[in-house]
Amino acid sequence: MNLMHELRKDPVLNRWIIAAKTPPATLTDFVTKEKEEPDDPQSCLLCAGREAGTPPEITAVREKGSKPNSSGWLTRVIPNFKPMLQIEGELNSEGMGMYDKINGVGANELIIETPEHIMNNRELDVRHVTRTLLMYKERILDLENDKRLRYILISKSYGKAAGALYSHPHSQLTASPIIPQRIKEELDSAKAYYKMKERCIFCDILREEEKTGERIVLESRDFIAFCPFASAFPFEIWIVPRKHECSFQETEGKEIEDLGLAIFTLLNKLAKLLNDPPYNLALHNAPNRVPRREHWHTLGDDFHWHIEIVPRLSTPAFEWSSGFYLLNIPPEAGAKYLREV
Amino acid sequence: MNLMHELRKDPVLNRWIIAAKTPPATLTDFVTKEKEEPDDPQSCLLCAGREAGTPPEITAVREKGSKPNSSGWLTRVIPNFKPMLQIEGELNSEGMGMYDKINGVGANELIIETPEHIMNNRELDVRHVTRTLLMYKERILDLENDKRLRYILISKSYGKAAGALYSHPHSQLTASPIIPQRIKEELDSAKAYYKMKERCIFCDILREEEKTGERIVLESRDFIAFCPFASAFPFEIWIVPRKHECSFQETEGKEIEDLGLAIFTLLNKLAKLLNDPPYNLALHNAPNRVPRREHWHTLGDDFHWHIEIVPRLSTPAFEWSSGFYLLNIPPEAGAKYLREV
Repeated sequence: MNLMHELRKDPVLNRWIIAAKTPPATLTDFVTKEKEEPDDPQSCLLCAGREAGTPPEITAVREKGSKPNSSGWLTRVIPNFKPMLQIEGELNSEGMGMYDKINGVGANELIIETPEHIMNNRELDVRHVTRTLLMYKERILDLENDKRLRYILISKSYGKAAGALYSHPHSQLTASPIIPQRIKEELDSAKAYYKMKERCIFCDILREEEKTGERIVLESRDFIAFCPFASAFPFEIWIVPRKHECSFQETEGKEIEDLGLAIFTLLNKLAKLLNDPPYNLALHNAPNRVPRREHWHTLGDDFHWHIEIVPRLSTPAFEWSSGFYLLNIPPEAGAKYLREV
Repeated sequence: MNLMHELRKDPVLNRWIIAAKTPPATLTDFVTKEKEEPDDPQSCLLCAGREAGTPPEITAVREKGSKPNSSGWLTRVIPNFKPMLQIEGELNSEGMGMYDKINGVGANELIIETPEHIMNNRELDVRHVTRTLLMYKERILDLENDKRLRYILISKSYGKAAGALYSHPHSQLTASPIIPQRIKEELDSAKAYYKMKERCIFCDILREEEKTGERIVLESRDFIAFCPFASAFPFEIWIVPRKHECSFQETEGKEIEDLGLAIFTLLNKLAKLLNDPPYNLALHNAPNRVPRREHWHTLGDDFHWHIEIVPRLSTPAFEWSSGFYLLNIPPEAGAKYLREV
């Protein structure tokens, strides 16, 4: 009996997904059909020249002589217009009957990646990507000093269908007093694996991927990008540093340049193959290490930071409620398309 | 300092979400704006009279004298057109390097809820809802005898934006050799809570909700429907039986009638309040109990089956990658709107 699908287990999340066993005859079902109406560049507050309309900037990479909150910047960081979490106030945890809550202390920032309103991935310059990554590092190094904050989540949404509120290139930073659940599951799993094998699970995954090669999309000096064995979404890509490092902020300038080129190349491959699809990108990093946590050395040393990119090609239906994902293209086929485009 | 949001912890999933502290001034942001183009009823294969175009039916509730695979049915079950999992073959688990996989054995069925192409929730008859629930029970009782299957997931997607492939009212059944991750997390958490407190966590939640009352949407003879404390989505509703029961299939006819009326009422409330929004509905049930699993009595007795309904009102952005949800309306405010509509 020739079954059409197989179940694959994600070794990190211990999550099973259903994957097609054979590549699709054509990519028609995957290619983005129509673009949603983008917001009007004429009224975009993230564009250079409209600094007066945003909250005061937190930091920026600027041309010499230009002043804060005026044009002349290359990368600019502002508080979100309607921040989810706010930096003011004491951390306060309380019970409500059987439930727990914490007041909304944290940070929520927009990292504006370009002064111009670039609406297509293919028009991005690789230098913008690298500068954005350097800004990620700068913001993490700044915010991790705040003892109230436990995790700094940085992610990017591109396109309305990926949940982006602006078409101007930007990333979002959310620093929170808790570790987001999906990240916590990864941390816990990496720790359990390390305890069992005395090896990092991500280092093992890299070795496995290099051995078979069929899911690899690109290899650079410092990074390997591949479609994971139990991808939850078609053309999902993980970019993992070859060197075992738990925290992104330990990454050096040369590595960040190499990463910038890798991301730039991958986004261009996705754009070319799938008609510039909407996507989400997220940095999976170890939690903050701050002196108040005595056991910080057990919090993430067994982790291996990486970046995950997921094109948004279809609307998940029962996946959200069950955590049971259906992958209608084998990761090996997705990787092959991406390698060859 | 008056913060706008607070963090709330889901006691079952141990997941923190960010919730607005104050109700929105208006529901404009939540109300569904435009309907996506529905598929054409003229060519719908799920309609009565087009039985020849579907795979042969598995079972149906039929008028006396009508024949299988012809019209005259009220509820009809067919294999999915392109099934994710197939019922034929031996279960076969194997390793691939460091990874694990299982061949795609299982079942994937469509439960067609009405013979007519009803496109609006408000036109559904309560009897259709009850008949559909009775069919859920019948299919679970049949499939749980299959020793290869560990879990039977039943869910419903309404509207394209919720991932529905057809506008004809239908539910989807996926029986799999594994327990879907989100369900497994609930089972594990309920077990851990029971071990610690010797009480069911869902029974405790019901007591808490009845005590405060502010998140309750409706109470029927056998069920309580409420917006959970740490809802991940605006207007999310859980329908939980008052009686502690781990398996839906143990529910009696009278209870199912009562549940049908509750679901019917809730869907009508959502339709009226939010302009007939797309939604997902899922049955969270205990796993299959089959003789081959010696320890079946530890698999789910501490669980409490329930139904979750989530309207799809916005596009999640970084939520998928982080498991960190943003709720822009407090559950107490959502419940109040739903109670009063």
